[in-house]
Amino acid sequence: MMPQLPPSRAPFTKRHLLQIGDLNRLEALELIERAEVFLPFTQAREKKLPTLKGRTLVNLFFENSTRTQASFELAGKRMSADTVNMAVKSSSVAKGETLLDTAATLNAMGPDILVLRHGASGAAQLLARKVGCSVINAGDGTHEHPTQALLDALTLKRSFGHVEGLTVAICGDVLHSRVARSNVILLSMLGARVRLIAPPTLMPADVDRWGCEIYHSMVEGLDGVDVVMMLRLQLERMNGGYVPSAREYFRFYGLDARKLSYAAPHVKVMHPGPMNRGVEIDSDIADDPRVSLIVDQVESGVAVRMAVLEALASHGANDEVLDV
Amino acid sequence: MMPQLPPSRAPFTKRHLLQIGDLNRLEALELIERAEVFLPFTQAREKKLPTLKGRTLVNLFFENSTRTQASFELAGKRMSADTVNMAVKSSSVAKGETLLDTAATLNAMGPDILVLRHGASGAAQLLARKVGCSVINAGDGTHEHPTQALLDALTLKRSFGHVEGLTVAICGDVLHSRVARSNVILLSMLGARVRLIAPPTLMPADVDRWGCEIYHSMVEGLDGVDVVMMLRLQLERMNGGYVPSAREYFRFYGLDARKLSYAAPHVKVMHPGPMNRGVEIDSDIADDPRVSLIVDQVESGVAVRMAVLEALASHGANDEVLDV
Amino acid sequence: MMPQLPPSRAPFTKRHLLQIGDLNRLEALELIERAEVFLPFTQAREKKLPTLKGRTLVNLFFENSTRTQASFELAGKRMSADTVNMAVKSSSVAKGETLLDTAATLNAMGPDILVLRHGASGAAQLLARKVGCSVINAGDGTHEHPTQALLDALTLKRSFGHVEGLTVAICGDVLHSRVARSNVILLSMLGARVRLIAPPTLMPADVDRWGCEIYHSMVEGLDGVDVVMMLRLQLERMNGGYVPSAREYFRFYGLDARKLSYAAPHVKVMHPGPMNRGVEIDSDIADDPRVSLIVDQVESGVAVRMAVLEALASHGANDEVLDV
Repeated sequence: MMPQLPPSRAPFTKRHLLQIGDLNRLEALELIERAEVFLPFTQAREKKLPTLKGRTLVNLFFENSTRTQASFELAGKRMSADTVNMAVKSSSVAKGETLLDTAATLNAMGPDILVLRHGASGAAQLLARKVGCSVINAGDGTHEHPTQALLDALTLKRSFGHVEGLTVAICGDVLHSRVARSNVILLSMLGARVRLIAPPTLMPADVDRWGCEIYHSMVEGLDGVDVVMMLRLQLERMNGGYVPSAREYFRFYGLDARKLSYAAPHVKVMHPGPMNRGVEIDSDIADDPRVSLIVDQVESGVAVRMAVLEALASHGANDEVLDV
Repeated sequence: MMPQLPPSRAPFTKRHLLQIGDLNRLEALELIERAEVFLPFTQAREKKLPTLKGRTLVNLFFENSTRTQASFELAGKRMSADTVNMAVKSSSVAKGETLLDTAATLNAMGPDILVLRHGASGAAQLLARKVGCSVINAGDGTHEHPTQALLDALTLKRSFGHVEGLTVAICGDVLHSRVARSNVILLSMLGARVRLIAPPTLMPADVDRWGCEIYHSMVEGLDGVDVVMMLRLQLERMNGGYVPSAREYFRFYGLDARKLSYAAPHVKVMHPGPMNRGVEIDSDIADDPRVSLIVDQVESGVAVRMAVLEALASHGANDEVLDV
Repeated sequence: MMPQLPPSRAPFTKRHLLQIGDLNRLEALELIERAEVFLPFTQAREKKLPTLKGRTLVNLFFENSTRTQASFELAGKRMSADTVNMAVKSSSVAKGETLLDTAATLNAMGPDILVLRHGASGAAQLLARKVGCSVINAGDGTHEHPTQALLDALTLKRSFGHVEGLTVAICGDVLHSRVARSNVILLSMLGARVRLIAPPTLMPADVDRWGCEIYHSMVEGLDGVDVVMMLRLQLERMNGGYVPSAREYFRFYGLDARKLSYAAPHVKVMHPGPMNRGVEIDSDIADDPRVSLIVDQVESGVAVRMAVLEALASHGANDEVLDV
């Protein structure tokens, strides 16, 4: 039997989801609320909603990501879309060219939604200007990963009942993290207080303009926080820069019980995955169901992506984004 | 809502599409006309036709081809078929054996349509003799790529209103091109006049029997033509033979504004993709919407493959092909 | 039109299929009988049954296997499940960790059935304890491959009308074979008499407890048998042990006409594929439709997997398995 859902509140006016800034506060809140409605269905026996019947979702991944791709594929299938996976191995040269030719080709095949992961910051914006369908940024270089921020916000709402007023410490390789950037923008928009904790070498140069409190010490930064959001050490994005040793990194910036004891007693821990266990996070913490929300994040991911797909399926024109 | 389509004209009598020669003129024209009916649906919101419901299409690709595979997968899904992708990495030894064992295995799984891409000329014929289902040749070595020729003909019909009477120059690496071979046969069958332009080293030895005008100079060959069909330089198929440098090749055989100026004023340019920009074609021409039909070709591709799938789904016996 | 099927006999009480020992004799017989009902539908025009509509099957393959993955994917699609393929390339280090993190991640995405192939014996058991859905073992190290044994039993039933009373010789690399292990257990359970034929170096150390007759000579072991089940030489699982040369191996343990002449006149030959032709089996025998059941095995595979999927979809709790 097809599950019965309340209708979505308001028509969504955007054509793409390229960055958190494409959403205003109300739109972000409605997506999160809608995802919460979808959540029980992602664990139900019959998980199919007819929303995207006859439409085509293409997963266009220039970087490997088994979990994100599977999350979008499942979200699409549960909304009854036809899903096609395209894994493109682009040579290091002419990546931009490959993207644009691939975009033109794909666009001519008439997809409705393109989900793009690409190693270059700005790739999703570039793609969105070249295609007639909706584009979802599933991670572009060190720029943004907006559905990750939305799923993190949903996870916090499920755990704390609200995002507003929480103090969240985002820790680790902020410099190379699109997850950090998207989360800072969304969490701030939703009224959370965000701290960034990183070694000076892994802090972005323009961090003063991010509107966060900046720390270089875990003990100081974690003091009294409600949430610790660990980042993956992005070794593959450190081109010739300073690369810390795993042991040294864990000692100063890895999350262990001692450092976590400085946070609030009710603290919760998050990680976007996949984890480097013993590098940025201790396994005892990652696997402790009393503090870890890591599995909830994955669960939230499918629901948030279903909500985003539903919203984009009812889009109007989105000319501001086309003019970027 | 399911789109309403006029019924297909006549039952198709062939079981396979292995080469353009499997079609007579009437069958080719009907496939192209039928694809034209499908064309608007490939860009519609709800793109699903029930034609292949409950049937299975297997994409069996021994060579990588993201775009052709996606085109067949989308065509299959839009006809409501179940689609399965099998990418087989065959070692250089025992390729034939792998193909036959894979064919027997796949056949026992009861697919309805096998789409084959393989590096060996004749592979599709070989497969068709071993399986009980329909086979579509999606490119076999330097032999044929019949759906490419059909989509090119549809593209010409959309642009000029007809194929008959056009003068088409096919330029470049004719020697290694299955696209050239299929197009020469189909274009001639449909009443176009075909010229081949290539350096002597990239012209097939038996080209005298192809029934085309032969040129070694772009300037002479392009004189007054309606259509320029550029070929991809197939470096991966040049085993030990003469390999031109990109710069030298572009100078003499790459399509640029100067060479194109010898063609008719209304000339259109095609390329089967993926393009080696700056090698066989100048980006300014490839991206010029006034002359380039390259994106239309991709669009035509999904529609033509839908028409071929529909036709084969109503097949009868095809014993001539089985006796090849 | 949707085919009409008799309803399945009894509700299946197990949640997983991890090893043949999870089934009792009656359950095994009912699965085989049910698969026989599905068999004609796998070759029909419209192959779709609604059993798993709205449910999700994930193929989680840590080892490459085009054919087994395709067989499960097709079985799932024919039962109307949504299917997702996840090919995980695990580094040699931390394989267990990868499996458990992947399991937790996947589980949070709410699949209904996980099909696992993994290089480590016991991986399916490990996974089953960590997830809330059904797990099917599609081969774990040298341990078990239960659906292969079920499809082999169905193949024998189709050919001989019964499994009980047959004498079956399983020949070759028994040491590294999960197929041999699963078959010995199921064939014994179903009342067949099993012989094992292998060189001493490829016979498991604990073979005395397998309850089979042991032979080191093909001529002696094949004497009068009804069925010869050849095993694939698992060169990739021979880590530093004795590796026979192909020529030497074929001479003593490869199945050829001379050795086969010692079997019963009505003898049938099986192989789980993919075959090393000329190593463990002569092509003349493999391709002889009078003796070879190899293609029937593949056909049986899809039907058996459909029966297993249907059975697990009606599962109850399975606490014994959870306590392993």
